Amino acid sequence: MVTMPAPDERPATVTLAEYLGTRLRQLGVDHLFGVPGDFNLDLLDGLAGGPTWVGSPNELGAGYAADAYARTRGLGVVVTTYGVGELSVINALAGAAAEDVPLVQVVGAPRRAAVQAGALVHHTLADGDFGHFSRAAAEVAAAAETLTEERATAQVDAVLLAAVTHRKPGYLAVPQDLALVQVDAAPLARPLVAHSDPAALAAFEARLTELLATAQRPVLVAGQLVPRFGAAGDLAKLAERHGVAVVTQLSARGVLDPAHPAFAGDHAGRMLANGTAELVEAADVVVHVGTALTAELTGFGSHRRPDADTPFLAAAEAGFGGAPVGRVLFADALAALDRALDSRVGPRYERAEVPAPAAPATGGPLTQAQLWSVLGGALPEGTALLADTGTSYWGAAGMPLPADTVFSGQPIWSSIGYALPAVLGQGLAEPARRPVLVIGDGAAQMTVQELSTIAATGVAPVVLLLDNRGYTIERALQSPRAAYNDVAAWDWCALVAGFTGGGAGYADAATGDELAAALGEAFADPSRLRVVRAVLDADDTPPLIDELARLATAAKK
Amino acid sequence: MVTMPAPDERPATVTLAEYLGTRLRQLGVDHLFGVPGDFNLDLLDGLAGGPTWVGSPNELGAGYAADAYARTRGLGVVVTTYGVGELSVINALAGAAAEDVPLVQVVGAPRRAAVQAGALVHHTLADGDFGHFSRAAAEVAAAAETLTEERATAQVDAVLLAAVTHRKPGYLAVPQDLALVQVDAAPLARPLVAHSDPAALAAFEARLTELLATAQRPVLVAGQLVPRFGAAGDLAKLAERHGVAVVTQLSARGVLDPAHPAFAGDHAGRMLANGTAELVEAADVVVHVGTALTAELTGFGSHRRPDADTPFLAAAEAGFGGAPVGRVLFADALAALDRALDSRVGPRYERAEVPAPAAPATGGPLTQAQLWSVLGGALPEGTALLADTGTSYWGAAGMPLPADTVFSGQPIWSSIGYALPAVLGQGLAEPARRPVLVIGDGAAQMTVQELSTIAATGVAPVVLLLDNRGYTIERALQSPRAAYNDVAAWDWCALVAGFTGGGAGYADAATGDELAAALGEAFADPSRLRVVRAVLDADDTPPLIDELARLATAAKK
Repeated sequence: MVTMPAPDERPATVTLAEYLGTRLRQLGVDHLFGVPGDFNLDLLDGLAGGPTWVGSPNELGAGYAADAYARTRGLGVVVTTYGVGELSVINALAGAAAEDVPLVQVVGAPRRAAVQAGALVHHTLADGDFGHFSRAAAEVAAAAETLTEERATAQVDAVLLAAVTHRKPGYLAVPQDLALVQVDAAPLARPLVAHSDPAALAAFEARLTELLATAQRPVLVAGQLVPRFGAAGDLAKLAERHGVAVVTQLSARGVLDPAHPAFAGDHAGRMLANGTAELVEAADVVVHVGTALTAELTGFGSHRRPDADTPFLAAAEAGFGGAPVGRVLFADALAALDRALDSRVGPRYERAEVPAPAAPATGGPLTQAQLWSVLGGALPEGTALLADTGTSYWGAAGMPLPADTVFSGQPIWSSIGYALPAVLGQGLAEPARRPVLVIGDGAAQMTVQELSTIAATGVAPVVLLLDNRGYTIERALQSPRAAYNDVAAWDWCALVAGFTGGGAGYADAATGDELAAALGEAFADPSRLRVVRAVLDADDTPPLIDELARLATAAKK
Repeated sequence: MVTMPAPDERPATVTLAEYLGTRLRQLGVDHLFGVPGDFNLDLLDGLAGGPTWVGSPNELGAGYAADAYARTRGLGVVVTTYGVGELSVINALAGAAAEDVPLVQVVGAPRRAAVQAGALVHHTLADGDFGHFSRAAAEVAAAAETLTEERATAQVDAVLLAAVTHRKPGYLAVPQDLALVQVDAAPLARPLVAHSDPAALAAFEARLTELLATAQRPVLVAGQLVPRFGAAGDLAKLAERHGVAVVTQLSARGVLDPAHPAFAGDHAGRMLANGTAELVEAADVVVHVGTALTAELTGFGSHRRPDADTPFLAAAEAGFGGAPVGRVLFADALAALDRALDSRVGPRYERAEVPAPAAPATGGPLTQAQLWSVLGGALPEGTALLADTGTSYWGAAGMPLPADTVFSGQPIWSSIGYALPAVLGQGLAEPARRPVLVIGDGAAQMTVQELSTIAATGVAPVVLLLDNRGYTIERALQSPRAAYNDVAAWDWCALVAGFTGGGAGYADAATGDELAAALGEAFADPSRLRVVRAVLDADDTPPLIDELARLATAAKK
């Protein structure tokens, strides 16, 4: 199913499972994440010639892996069984909604006859109502369908197209007895593509051109849709060609290299003291390129608010001041922005010299300040840095990045434990880019078993485990001494060996020098999973956490 | 908050968190399971004087633990944060709905001002709609409320009372800024109690008395509501006093001791070849005492169907032929059944001798047949046997039980991984009864990290891990050679040490003799967690699985 046969070789019908597998391959999906269950076995058997199966210990891990895969490939799929399986992954589906990720869940559902009869079967509430879980999924998915025999392929196409167009999650329930029915293969000859409304696109471009024509100090604010649409390269070229400043929301960290002449820094309202707040305030036009204006990403509302003229580019619409002009796809809107800047008459952005951050004092027990300084110095170019929620995210967010770094996390959904399984999806989606995970011990405890899938599939990340015996971000926010923020002590060395069959490297680091040595070794050996456990004080935090806690507390008042 | 102060010492107001904690204590809840998160920290601080906090590595484990706690205590509570936390536990909540378990989820939700403003904050879909997750929960919970300042205590009382009355899950979302407001403490002086409708109860008893008056061969079919309402003792007394035969659905296994004179055996339609199908067929009155007639529990519909006269006792209603006469609570209905049998004129049930099962051949690599024979011979009286879904459940279901055994699993919801965290809840709910867990490796991989909480809280179960490198029930049902049924190999010895700090016992068993020796040691040492890993062939199954696969395949046709 990898190559599309010539039209005259193409079979007239295929099984529904084959249809789905072919569509997924067309959209860049070469791996399926998930867990088998009796209601999806026909589906899995029918998908056998399609994308490679990657089984996970549990569904939530598979969902997170598929989310990370989707961020790189433009689509990711998690396959579960009905009820017990699908509900275990709804957290990942909701996260994809918040973070604009085209993650599609495919559920093997009970036979249609059982549903029609209201039969009392396992994996149901035993109340005869088979709609509970698809209705729950529809609360978080942008498109959700339970397939029918009459419309199955159209439903598959609609959900997949919605997911890739809107960069939002989708949900497909496949009744067990439909998985292997023959369906018309003809639609497969036409790729799934969405289009902008030409009139809306023209209107957007015209007003944008007018707004930018004499702009002296325009600023582009890049948000999470830039990496989601794989548009980092296009944005970098556009910004360089036109000499227009770009600031990146934390959700778009790394889309411009630090040395890029148009890169003015990360931006989160006034939370980051790096001059971007002032730059945006002083701009005569601020263009929102795929942003999300959530509390944390705007420094708790300390950003410059869009006004009626502020252009924005969203996934499938664009417009001004929050009012869309119509259906304009992100890539088309970005191309329109490029053309609009062609006719701008105004100076090129001159980037200020950014002083290198002072290195923290060395010696003594390892501190958070030392950790981020050492990691920043050791991190090679070309990695995918995945930062879990909490001190890991806010520490990594404040650390300078080397060139060509993909930076990923969940600054909106913030579900701890996400980033460990995400290593699996990122590693399989982009094998040439080594994943580097930073994660706290509390977060790693959530989804630790996914280390086994990572090792079994040959993904060889560097894992930096921040062990501070609990939820330090909560200690910083509210309750420094509360026992509920402590987690059970684990023997991480034994666990890493247990999950990986002894094939992984492991080191403890209790000082800055030990950390530098351990990371040096880990980055020098790309052949296998390497875990470095950093021993940290329970109350030590990176600087951004202190600022976050201050602003979050003020916002509660 | 343990003892209720005399009326004149009782404060006029308490915080809402204290109100909740006091209500939970009144209903037998001495432990709270869960995971902290920033939206529930005020709630957790306010609950500090209430039930003991038991933090878990992740929410699903906490939910399963609370489910098992609820089965023993009559109420169990899992506390999570909003969005990321609550969605991770919805699988457990749905399982409680299917299995009739009074599990209440308490969610720390965002501040009311943020909700009213439609603010874009973390742990939301960033769409301003804060109702997605409570609507998802309402799909599976019998009662769901987001607390308001005006009605908070009434809402708490309503959800808790619904959960304990109907033995169904409940959901309470507590806005962060309500957790510590002062509320009227007066309702706490009145315990939460539900009542039957006296007229309905009288009508039920009258018709039941008439039906049973001359019954020669009545049979009681005991279902899961008997253990859920803690009614095993009452049922045993009733059956012995009146000499009336009792068969137990697998969901009520163990409610009567094997030597009880009225115990006629486990019953699942014709799936169990033990004479109970014939006994039920020949009965002149069949009383359904808290049954659930799902496919697996009825041997795929091979049971005798209820007719218009068949009496049934449900959680909060009772009646005949599926038509309730009105609101009759389970305990009242059971007492009515007792009185109705007082006037029966008919012979006492004479139990047939049950031949002891033949011991399987010994020697050679360990087989499933040997495993269940060895476990059955080694299991002491007075344990709580928790069987996970799959070969573990169906193997344990076919094994003779010693006296005073609590048998527990999920024969309806069948979510693999449930029973491992359930050990935590069962062990804390009833410390005098040692938990014994049988679980496959595929299931244990789902929720393995809960071993750390089990060890940290001092619960000291015997864990029998059936290691057949995958999902053998699925191999038996459909796809014996499919790679998706294989799981990654883990070093269980290292993992047990890693999760428990080295304090647990561990042994491998590859023959029947090794298993007998390892279990003998484990049962002789009640001081600590003991794990015995049984090495089994991937295709070997207990006999009931073969029958289940045959019937399930026939039912698909």
